[in-house]
Amino acid sequence: MSEDIKNEEVVEEVEVTEEAVEETSETPEKSDLDLANERAEEFENKYLRAHAEMQNIQRRANEERQTLQRYRSQDLAKKILPSLDNLERALAVEGLTDDVKKGIEMVQESLIQALKEEGIEEVPVENFDHNLHMAVQTLPADDEHPADSIAQVFQKGYKLHERLLRPAMVVVYN
Amino acid sequence: MSEDIKNEEVVEEVEVTEEAVEETSETPEKSDLDLANERAEEFENKYLRAHAEMQNIQRRANEERQTLQRYRSQDLAKKILPSLDNLERALAVEGLTDDVKKGIEMVQESLIQALKEEGIEEVPVENFDHNLHMAVQTLPADDEHPADSIAQVFQKGYKLHERLLRPAMVVVYN
Repeated sequence: MSEDIKNEEVVEEVEVTEEAVEETSETPEKSDLDLANERAEEFENKYLRAHAEMQNIQRRANEERQTLQRYRSQDLAKKILPSLDNLERALAVEGLTDDVKKGIEMVQESLIQALKEEGIEEVPVENFDHNLHMAVQTLPADDEHPADSIAQVFQKGYKLHERLLRPAMVVVYN
Repeated sequence: MSEDIKNEEVVEEVEVTEEAVEETSETPEKSDLDLANERAEEFENKYLRAHAEMQNIQRRANEERQTLQRYRSQDLAKKILPSLDNLERALAVEGLTDDVKKGIEMVQESLIQALKEEGIEEVPVENFDHNLHMAVQTLPADDEHPADSIAQVFQKGYKLHERLLRPAMVVVYN
């Protein structure tokens, strides 16, 4: 019996440190065995919850890592787009010598290639799509130019994988 | 002494129950209370281990996320450096009109600015540092040109924060 009392004290201490609100478990009806079983069950549940949570944390961390990887170039790419615009404008200047033109085209191509390797590409401009395009002007549609066809691209749009970096600025028939 | 032996057996048994081999755990020496206490202790330990592991996983995931964020622009930046080289070469061409020159400079500045905002900057070239520079040629040092001073930069080097993206190609006195 003195052995039992000793055990009960031990049990009590453990539970008190756990949640510090264990007084109710000391109702006189409960035997030491009951208490020990309760304690075992409590820790089994805690263990199972911790284990499940651990797997959740790991899964979320993996997903987050993949997303970060997939869109890692987004910020730099966005900031580079104006340079690409400027290169296009430079190429449109009248009276460039062949050497200069070739030089600018080389820079342009190497930039486009660098962006492409990181998943950044021009937005297609076949037909107007409000998810990809911004209509800065409209023209009346006619037989030759059906509604939603694109008349002109003012500024190219770009996307990183399926994520839009900026919409294309277009003139659209409607 | 009999107490010691008992304790030793307890340790053994816990390990056996670990793996769903329950037959052996019913040796007659043990009371139900002993078994329940063992089970409680086993799950408490499992819980504590799982909890500690959870915190480790979380900590590692955070560190990894920070590193990914910090160096996220590394790949795209590396691929853009040749475009910057080409722009410099283009600017060195003789007989550029002011308009063309201004246009190229604008592209160059906007690229440098974009890179800078992402933490990418030119490697300094005050004195030769084998961590930052690659000596492609050497010249004999003299009174005016002490050893390790840099005579010429063939190609600029760049770093992302403290991480070298590519070394500067230099001519060094030695």
